[in-house]
Amino acid sequence: MAPLTPRLVVPIDVKKQPWEQKVPLHNRWHPDIPPVADVTEGELFRVEMVDWTGGRVRDDNSADDIKFLDLTITHYLSGPLRIVDSEGVPASPGDLLAVEICNLGPLPGDEWGYTAIFERENGGGFLTDHFPTARKAIWYFEGIYAYSPQIPGVRFPGLTHPGIVGTAPSVELLNIWNEREKRLAETSPQALKLCEVLHQRPLANLPTPENCLLGKIQEGTAEWHKMANEAARTIPGRENGGNCDIKNLSRGSKVYLPVFVEGANLSTGDMHFSQGDGEVSFCGAIEMSGFLELKCEIIRGGMKEYLSPVGPTPLHVNPIFEIGPVEPRFSEWLVFEGISVDESGKQHFLDASVAYKRAVLNAIEYLSRFGYSKEQVYLLLSCCPCEGRISGIVDSPNAVATLAIPTAIFDQVYLLLSCCPCEGRISGIVDSPNAVTTLAIPTAIFDQDIKPKCLNGRPLGGPQLRRLPDLLSCSNNGHLPATQGKSGTSAP
Amino acid sequence: MAPLTPRLVVPIDVKKQPWEQKVPLHNRWHPDIPPVADVTEGELFRVEMVDWTGGRVRDDNSADDIKFLDLTITHYLSGPLRIVDSEGVPASPGDLLAVEICNLGPLPGDEWGYTAIFERENGGGFLTDHFPTARKAIWYFEGIYAYSPQIPGVRFPGLTHPGIVGTAPSVELLNIWNEREKRLAETSPQALKLCEVLHQRPLANLPTPENCLLGKIQEGTAEWHKMANEAARTIPGRENGGNCDIKNLSRGSKVYLPVFVEGANLSTGDMHFSQGDGEVSFCGAIEMSGFLELKCEIIRGGMKEYLSPVGPTPLHVNPIFEIGPVEPRFSEWLVFEGISVDESGKQHFLDASVAYKRAVLNAIEYLSRFGYSKEQVYLLLSCCPCEGRISGIVDSPNAVATLAIPTAIFDQVYLLLSCCPCEGRISGIVDSPNAVTTLAIPTAIFDQDIKPKCLNGRPLGGPQLRRLPDLLSCSNNGHLPATQGKSGTSAP
Amino acid sequence: MAPLTPRLVVPIDVKKQPWEQKVPLHNRWHPDIPPVADVTEGELFRVEMVDWTGGRVRDDNSADDIKFLDLTITHYLSGPLRIVDSEGVPASPGDLLAVEICNLGPLPGDEWGYTAIFERENGGGFLTDHFPTARKAIWYFEGIYAYSPQIPGVRFPGLTHPGIVGTAPSVELLNIWNEREKRLAETSPQALKLCEVLHQRPLANLPTPENCLLGKIQEGTAEWHKMANEAARTIPGRENGGNCDIKNLSRGSKVYLPVFVEGANLSTGDMHFSQGDGEVSFCGAIEMSGFLELKCEIIRGGMKEYLSPVGPTPLHVNPIFEIGPVEPRFSEWLVFEGISVDESGKQHFLDASVAYKRAVLNAIEYLSRFGYSKEQVYLLLSCCPCEGRISGIVDSPNAVATLAIPTAIFDQVYLLLSCCPCEGRISGIVDSPNAVTTLAIPTAIFDQDIKPKCLNGRPLGGPQLRRLPDLLSCSNNGHLPATQGKSGTSAP
Amino acid sequence: MAPLTPRLVVPIDVKKQPWEQKVPLHNRWHPDIPPVADVTEGELFRVEMVDWTGGRVRDDNSADDIKFLDLTITHYLSGPLRIVDSEGVPASPGDLLAVEICNLGPLPGDEWGYTAIFERENGGGFLTDHFPTARKAIWYFEGIYAYSPQIPGVRFPGLTHPGIVGTAPSVELLNIWNEREKRLAETSPQALKLCEVLHQRPLANLPTPENCLLGKIQEGTAEWHKMANEAARTIPGRENGGNCDIKNLSRGSKVYLPVFVEGANLSTGDMHFSQGDGEVSFCGAIEMSGFLELKCEIIRGGMKEYLSPVGPTPLHVNPIFEIGPVEPRFSEWLVFEGISVDESGKQHFLDASVAYKRAVLNAIEYLSRFGYSKEQVYLLLSCCPCEGRISGIVDSPNAVATLAIPTAIFDQVYLLLSCCPCEGRISGIVDSPNAVTTLAIPTAIFDQDIKPKCLNGRPLGGPQLRRLPDLLSCSNNGHLPATQGKSGTSAP
Repeated sequence: MAPLTPRLVVPIDVKKQPWEQKVPLHNRWHPDIPPVADVTEGELFRVEMVDWTGGRVRDDNSADDIKFLDLTITHYLSGPLRIVDSEGVPASPGDLLAVEICNLGPLPGDEWGYTAIFERENGGGFLTDHFPTARKAIWYFEGIYAYSPQIPGVRFPGLTHPGIVGTAPSVELLNIWNEREKRLAETSPQALKLCEVLHQRPLANLPTPENCLLGKIQEGTAEWHKMANEAARTIPGRENGGNCDIKNLSRGSKVYLPVFVEGANLSTGDMHFSQGDGEVSFCGAIEMSGFLELKCEIIRGGMKEYLSPVGPTPLHVNPIFEIGPVEPRFSEWLVFEGISVDESGKQHFLDASVAYKRAVLNAIEYLSRFGYSKEQVYLLLSCCPCEGRISGIVDSPNAVATLAIPTAIFDQVYLLLSCCPCEGRISGIVDSPNAVTTLAIPTAIFDQDIKPKCLNGRPLGGPQLRRLPDLLSCSNNGHLPATQGKSGTSAP
Repeated sequence: MAPLTPRLVVPIDVKKQPWEQKVPLHNRWHPDIPPVADVTEGELFRVEMVDWTGGRVRDDNSADDIKFLDLTITHYLSGPLRIVDSEGVPASPGDLLAVEICNLGPLPGDEWGYTAIFERENGGGFLTDHFPTARKAIWYFEGIYAYSPQIPGVRFPGLTHPGIVGTAPSVELLNIWNEREKRLAETSPQALKLCEVLHQRPLANLPTPENCLLGKIQEGTAEWHKMANEAARTIPGRENGGNCDIKNLSRGSKVYLPVFVEGANLSTGDMHFSQGDGEVSFCGAIEMSGFLELKCEIIRGGMKEYLSPVGPTPLHVNPIFEIGPVEPRFSEWLVFEGISVDESGKQHFLDASVAYKRAVLNAIEYLSRFGYSKEQVYLLLSCCPCEGRISGIVDSPNAVATLAIPTAIFDQVYLLLSCCPCEGRISGIVDSPNAVTTLAIPTAIFDQDIKPKCLNGRPLGGPQLRRLPDLLSCSNNGHLPATQGKSGTSAP
Repeated sequence: MAPLTPRLVVPIDVKKQPWEQKVPLHNRWHPDIPPVADVTEGELFRVEMVDWTGGRVRDDNSADDIKFLDLTITHYLSGPLRIVDSEGVPASPGDLLAVEICNLGPLPGDEWGYTAIFERENGGGFLTDHFPTARKAIWYFEGIYAYSPQIPGVRFPGLTHPGIVGTAPSVELLNIWNEREKRLAETSPQALKLCEVLHQRPLANLPTPENCLLGKIQEGTAEWHKMANEAARTIPGRENGGNCDIKNLSRGSKVYLPVFVEGANLSTGDMHFSQGDGEVSFCGAIEMSGFLELKCEIIRGGMKEYLSPVGPTPLHVNPIFEIGPVEPRFSEWLVFEGISVDESGKQHFLDASVAYKRAVLNAIEYLSRFGYSKEQVYLLLSCCPCEGRISGIVDSPNAVATLAIPTAIFDQVYLLLSCCPCEGRISGIVDSPNAVTTLAIPTAIFDQDIKPKCLNGRPLGGPQLRRLPDLLSCSNNGHLPATQGKSGTSAP
Repeated sequence: MAPLTPRLVVPIDVKKQPWEQKVPLHNRWHPDIPPVADVTEGELFRVEMVDWTGGRVRDDNSADDIKFLDLTITHYLSGPLRIVDSEGVPASPGDLLAVEICNLGPLPGDEWGYTAIFERENGGGFLTDHFPTARKAIWYFEGIYAYSPQIPGVRFPGLTHPGIVGTAPSVELLNIWNEREKRLAETSPQALKLCEVLHQRPLANLPTPENCLLGKIQEGTAEWHKMANEAARTIPGRENGGNCDIKNLSRGSKVYLPVFVEGANLSTGDMHFSQGDGEVSFCGAIEMSGFLELKCEIIRGGMKEYLSPVGPTPLHVNPIFEIGPVEPRFSEWLVFEGISVDESGKQHFLDASVAYKRAVLNAIEYLSRFGYSKEQVYLLLSCCPCEGRISGIVDSPNAVATLAIPTAIFDQVYLLLSCCPCEGRISGIVDSPNAVTTLAIPTAIFDQDIKPKCLNGRPLGGPQLRRLPDLLSCSNNGHLPATQGKSGTSAP
């Protein structure tokens, strides 16, 4: 007889603040954050997590919480967990920690999430030059499905995953991080060509004691002060895994993490009900609180055996993953392409980031023709299970990136209504003076032999006008302060 | 009764040179290349194509053909085809041309292909700083499968597709291309930060009359001279589609191409038996001759209706695609991650190209532990159906890219042989002085409860030594001339 | 703001007996069983369920509970639920009830299940003539995965589903059921040709007051006596859905049930963590307690609109289903065929049941060569996600049925150990005097070019001998009482 | 360097009669039919095949060819091929022959096929009591897709496969076949309960010299007479494989066939562009001429090693199969259920054939509501990639079978036209006096929140009347002769 349920090692009460939880949370990476629990190899255990902001974003009618969110609070993580083998010997630096995600989901009783656009001056996002003001959409879950009152006509099964899973860095690795990111932040934007095209800021998020939470280390102590000034922020993914935002790390997948400190010190957080490749709007997944059911295995000496460093030290490695067997299955995809020519028409050299930006812009333009605002589509592409691929990275000078969208996420009646020359008859949901309206993704789901007949000999009309629900906005949008760099100037 | 077989509009004789074909080929984009045939909307037709080099690469024992290949010859395309509707009215600028790929494959009697690494000084590739010398692998086809004598232990079904499908540019669009690429080429490498990390060259391939083939336009005439000096090279993908190298454009998929000139002037070429996302070794697909069976539809006014320009003119658009229903099905994937920190340890800002480079390097390092040379893996990742994704593009400063490899492409016995402590017993294929050898992708295909027993209590050993077949090499490798830029200096 | 969690309408306490639950259960179909709750169209609600036996089968070391299980207790169902529209009007006879399964799973804290062979004289099963004695295997769940100490070397993701989902029959439909099943039971086995081949018994399970549970109707009352003598048993699937055991009714699927009584009176039960097509060992799924999260919609008049009766009355209909988007994904299948020739060599006429029996026997024989007992394989094929298909049903006289098994459910190291001529070295788990042992499903996972070398020139040996864990057995097996029909005589 | 194309061992000229082909064909199973070619293990070779009738069914406007087709001519097979190993030693009885299907397809220039209903008195079919008269539909191929002028609104990718692949029987096995089938045919229909429900006839097809073709054995010789009187007909699948009609034996799949005679004597034929599970209309696949590219391997002694006999002799075995990796991918399925209660309301005991018959009838009734005739749907379910499954085979007395149809095969506009209350406006293709028409598979593809609005507040109307193209019929339908058994009497 085996234990019939996973052991709960980190419980969460969503009614409490992050710093009030029974098992203390943390929001920085540091080797000296003390483990909150021991976990034995082979044991099935459960970790619960607050959402990345610890409850600061609410299920309400305003995007003000997004607009004013202090990013120094993020991400609230559960852990660290000290992993030991069946004889009690902890994982050691140089080992590989295999973490199997046996199950995951939202926390019972808290089955909702949100997707947001951050303000250009506060966090930004991949397209912050195009969409500079804060917006928010709420998502409700119906088992495997999510829907949003703010983005009507879509409902899709989530590919739920943790945005963050990582081990603690060693002192040496922490120093490497802090040095290379500091160097980047100090470089003026002029020296970074991508900054002209990707308007996100800041360039890097350096250590700061502000809002720093270090688990069992009490705030205000000398130890806390020392650690808070050097502990790495959680925003980027790094050698320890961390915020890698790989949407396919869902049920049944496995992560092989390098171990840098004794016990591995595993932390997790930033649960996503669903996310598109790239998570383009920054707060772009369907962010939620949630739980993980995990099983660990220590592969002794595995770092040397399986991970070859690519960089100046043996610590310059990256985790390996295996994808699980139960992802949602889509069979029809509409694909948008981008090449590394930016919005100003300038040619870039094999730049996949520029190419992907253009692919996303193309998809936004296309889908906005069916009654959505562009901000709605931007959010949708951030959080629906779309795939961003690097198709060509060698055909100078153009990198080719693609964005593939499963058409099944769209309510087909919603889109098809534009196709039929039915005028006032469907007046309940279409508020259009123009009778014959645009055919929606018609080439994706229609048979061409039929299409002309469907339109009854009339020419294709213009885009359809509808009065749709829109995204939740912040109270003072329209009064965006001026940006100080080039980035602000090229916004449309 | 319908016609029982597609009409052959461009026949190819692979025993003849590209310029000797019955229907003339071309290797440049230009509005004035005359159509070689008319095709009617709705008609099923067949186009045959030489491989991208027109037969310059041979099924022989040397990579010299790769080393000395003159890139001004590429890519030989079939077409242009003038598309008309059922009343004979040609497609017009502003229309959208829907091209359905009903079938495709290698040419009967020519069922083989090749994958190659280009010399650093002649074309290069995504990792040319790591792999600067020319190499070649030959692939033979067995129906849907390909195998290579030079890369033993893998056999996989191809996701066959055309690397190039595109319409002719208008004069205005051609000018835009030439100007922006010229500007890029004139910029010194110092101004292009990516050139320090991506050592490919040249920066752009500008128009040149050298080896220029313009279909029915006779070489040497005044018209030819004028056109040859302004016709765009075929290497990058651009607004007209072109060399987009999207591996999923296989059976049943559909391309929606913008029409820039009367008749659309559709051209195709560069058939790939299989390709990985990114086609990283540049000549990285399994290159072959082949055929396409196509069906076109003209969507009148569709460019304006469905494609929104992203850029300064209405011509700054990109095609849209639909993926077909019969791709090979893989259920287990091993995923490698990369972040935008380069090999020197330098932090880049949200650079997906750098992140993908690192993911590819990580995969090469990993797989080379199982008896392959790194060049073998580099070629394999270029041509097998692996997926390159942009996972995170907003978590400053690290972009996160992933490379996912379907484990089913590997012959499992080949890899498993290292797992069993069988020493001399399996002497037939393993030529190793060391008895206990590395466990191959064990975490991908093994159950951990069993693994320690499998190794019989012995510690994990080092990588296995085998005398494997290697890639075909060129005659004078090792005498690589010095490069003139920064790119040459950081090669390992 | 929407409710953030589904409303719990039927709670279960697994520590209590079925008749002690707060909301009373039932184990018969009858129009007069009173609804236990109302549910509104569009509302997300949660139903919890005991396992089909209400806790009679235990996580212990004996199959005695299976041997002596009284089948008159089954199946304990939760419900009936009365479905009303948003204005409170209940579903009416003639409507169609669409039930979406938004989520499901085991009950938290009770994450285990069992699969069993019933005794030939007590329930039997598809192969009861071959496997007449009771056996049991326990399965433990690790999130999406199940494993059994009694069937080592397999672990697979469940395609979890309710075995039973149905509406209450009307009086008229109940009478049809009772009459046609009584007629069958009264027919002597001699008149039923399939009984010579399928030795299951009894032929039908007619109404009986024994162990009858009728929800809110108190046992012993006159009403109870009347109803208990006419209420239909729950074992077969019928026009109301019921025990249809369709393994693909998992997350995201939808059932369209005919409505026969006011309110529809929806009941559910018999949760399966996983099941193979046919559920061949009778208690053949991984049986468990569990929960469903459901959403209903009433399609007014939908029965007439969408379901055409096939039979003498308008009630002779069957439900329709839609499969959900998140089933486990397997890409390699090993397929066993059967034709309608029985074990005695007798030819049957297009009999799919006989053909499927032979396909299952073929699979058992094959897999038992790899160290499993035949009973172990019989149980495994009952509960793993294998597919039973009717391939040919017209090529007289042979029906062709197939059984497809996803090879990924097997621990590959477990099976591969037989392949390597490693003798005593792997002594930990192989207890074999014979050095070179059988290659396991080699053709499924091996490349043939390699195989002969792997065996090192030695001929293929016989099946491998291992001392494996076996199934849990009942205390007095071997003393099976004689059967009274033909069925007993042909058992092996 | 390897051969670049498969060796053609059996060429076909579709303009010639089956008996005029350069390499002689055969249409019976017999050990003494001489091999037409040798094939070496590991060699890639190509076999071409006529369609099963050898060209008797024409691409014309009448079903007369079906009505009067003489079934003694079928199936014309290519082969036998003698399989030898690399040293020239042929496969021996007791070996296993692994046949990999590397590629397959229609013959170039003959890219069409047909699906038919056979006359009740001449061949019949699974539902011959419901559909007793001959009908025909022609299918044209566009690469991977097929469409039929007689069944508008559907187009789907084929899961192309050979209906027949088999080895020659030994004398002993041939005798077993002839004896058991003769015994069946001699049994009166009264003794076979299934014959009351499945009206197919004849019960078995016994050897007959009529139209017998035996390859190189010259017709009329003494040898021919002897063999023709004992050679087995090709209609049923048997121990040697044969006409197993397994729709998933497509590209990349593998068959493991028992070897009964020296050289194995492999024959293939009956190519299907596509087929549904069960091939219910008998001539139910999309029948075509075609080619196979195959690769064989001999597993010495493999019959004993891998195939356990289920029956009285060691010859009572069945082949094993592996499914290939490139089947069409569908994600949405509509599922119809059947239970073992027949059309008269009679209860059968766990009879999967009866249950499947009812599932097929349910699907026909449902789909015929969308403007199709029932015969059109019957043919469509025979040939489209639908799946027939045995869901429950133990819940006495009802077997539960399901038929799952991928909804993507339907032209969605075609079906959706009924949904919109657009009346005369879509007059081009709908010829209906009734304005508001049935919603087509609405629950499969629609979102319920939208549906009532789509219907604009009107109640759901009755089925839509359209004047559709219908199936090709035979000249004298309506004059069906009386049948002699019970089977004729219950036809509707």
